Amino acid sequence: MDTLRWIGDSATGKLALIDQTRLPGECIEIELQTAEQVWEAIKMLRVRGAPAIGIAAAYGMVIGMQSADSDDVGSWFSQLEKVIDYLASSRPTAVNLFWALDRQRQVAERLRKSQSLEEIATALLDEAGAIHEEDRQMCRAIGRHGAGLLANTSGVLTHCNAGGLATADYGTALAVIFSAHEDGKKLHVYADETRPLLQGARLTAWELKQRGIDVTVICDSTAAQVMREGRVQAVITGADRIAANGDVANKIGTYQLALVAAAHEIPFYVAAPTSTFDLSLENGNQIPIEQRNSGEVTHIFGYQTVPDGVDVYNPAFDVTPAHLIRALICEKGIIDPVTRQEVKNIV
Amino acid sequence: MDTLRWIGDSATGKLALIDQTRLPGECIEIELQTAEQVWEAIKMLRVRGAPAIGIAAAYGMVIGMQSADSDDVGSWFSQLEKVIDYLASSRPTAVNLFWALDRQRQVAERLRKSQSLEEIATALLDEAGAIHEEDRQMCRAIGRHGAGLLANTSGVLTHCNAGGLATADYGTALAVIFSAHEDGKKLHVYADETRPLLQGARLTAWELKQRGIDVTVICDSTAAQVMREGRVQAVITGADRIAANGDVANKIGTYQLALVAAAHEIPFYVAAPTSTFDLSLENGNQIPIEQRNSGEVTHIFGYQTVPDGVDVYNPAFDVTPAHLIRALICEKGIIDPVTRQEVKNIV
Repeated sequence: MDTLRWIGDSATGKLALIDQTRLPGECIEIELQTAEQVWEAIKMLRVRGAPAIGIAAAYGMVIGMQSADSDDVGSWFSQLEKVIDYLASSRPTAVNLFWALDRQRQVAERLRKSQSLEEIATALLDEAGAIHEEDRQMCRAIGRHGAGLLANTSGVLTHCNAGGLATADYGTALAVIFSAHEDGKKLHVYADETRPLLQGARLTAWELKQRGIDVTVICDSTAAQVMREGRVQAVITGADRIAANGDVANKIGTYQLALVAAAHEIPFYVAAPTSTFDLSLENGNQIPIEQRNSGEVTHIFGYQTVPDGVDVYNPAFDVTPAHLIRALICEKGIIDPVTRQEVKNIV
Repeated sequence: MDTLRWIGDSATGKLALIDQTRLPGECIEIELQTAEQVWEAIKMLRVRGAPAIGIAAAYGMVIGMQSADSDDVGSWFSQLEKVIDYLASSRPTAVNLFWALDRQRQVAERLRKSQSLEEIATALLDEAGAIHEEDRQMCRAIGRHGAGLLANTSGVLTHCNAGGLATADYGTALAVIFSAHEDGKKLHVYADETRPLLQGARLTAWELKQRGIDVTVICDSTAAQVMREGRVQAVITGADRIAANGDVANKIGTYQLALVAAAHEIPFYVAAPTSTFDLSLENGNQIPIEQRNSGEVTHIFGYQTVPDGVDVYNPAFDVTPAHLIRALICEKGIIDPVTRQEVKNIV
């Protein structure tokens, strides 16, 4: 089953995706037919991972424009901006969301004078398909570039899910692992469970097991101990946004992991497509960090773990400074060392 | 309600304790009347925290000897050794368990020639009561010694639960916080939720809130971010066993926390009674680390989070090397610097 897929034409089609909140218990595909449903699916993490969010938003634009007045260019383009703003409000950190929406805006504006609104709607679907296909190619390229960084019979630790469920194909961080595995390397992956929403336990372990790669799930706080025992030779994660200097915003806990990897002199890699880079930001301090509902921490599957009235701090992301990152792996190559100049050279 | 209390005399009495697996949802006292029930309560963490485990085991000896043949000295002492071995098998890491059982053995052996078996049984209850009372005094002394280390209006981060529920009175790490609070200092505590069993979210937050101290619960992997934001001026935890060189075994995640505290130049303190020191061990590598059931990680309140067939690594403790610890706070004073010599001087 695909992480996301489009069904039908631009005028009446819909977006189908795996509801990732139900994994690993149930693997269910849901169909989205309104912009509100797409917004909710992104907000509630039914689809998550920076690349997949970008693809969902691109298709969401097609869905959001199905109700537009195709007899009135001004009204149609006014709705276009409203749908862009609306979908952009679903989550603040992953830059792929804004990047994909901006690509759709540019397509529509470019064709405004020369094409009919029906043709522009079709072009939006084509562009979403192109973003989707580019993402597949990106995953493969990242895998190929990164595979050489992982040694045979090594332990690799990862955090959250940067796999097929976060992308159109086989992921970013996990693409590197999958590609090394396809090269015949024997790897053992340690997957942080990744509180609060347990994407590592639920999604990463599921993907690795499906591909026959040895995986051990650990609590997030066990990572340092696993490193101390000599079980880990590399750490690799995805990213939600990367600033011009190479600072990386990724799932909360990534920064902590980078610090403990540094303490054990274990290389820490980040794999992400160039669409995840935001060169308009000088450094990671400028990346907006999403604060999520305290209920994600206080209640686990409806069971209350934090007493009533107790405060919770639940940032969804943190920023790992470039100096803690050995290399950035993107579809255009490896950025090493992680410096402003090297980012500029490759992205 | 007391964490533990004895009801009745040595011949027919029983141990009542708060079932900590039910907190914070329910505050229920259970009554233990057999050695098997005491063993199960320790094993299943109904009572937990190194000092409280020691107290429970001391009372457990009284219970375990209620069924002994009081007409046959040889048989009675043979049962004593069996009960000691049995209770000692409940959990391997917290040395207070073995320390308390050994105190009971010494009491019985000392009186073997001079007292009746009924009198020895009474002496065991008296000794358990003494261990219980010493623990109360210990908590207060640790609080007094440590309070000066916390500055007014500072943020303090703690992991797991080293509070009243882990002891007979108001804890070890939390005793320091409670004592500083009583001195009029305004503190804000960040409590790691402490996966897998969430003692921080369930127990520490509950204790702090009951005493009117500001507390914010965070996921374990958020600690570094909270430090980076300048919210934390000190970290303080308890301990389950401390080697002669000052290496500390404590709840899994403590080592990771000590590393990230060091990276932010935040002092890392450990508070524990001298009964937690095991001077027979040269260093922390010799401390046996309990491996717990994978189900603690794979299922949260019965809900499966890790796919079937995926391996889990679930050590209950890790070892923090002495060089990462600014000071050890015990009832006899502060061990600073944390060196073999200074441990020898104070413990």
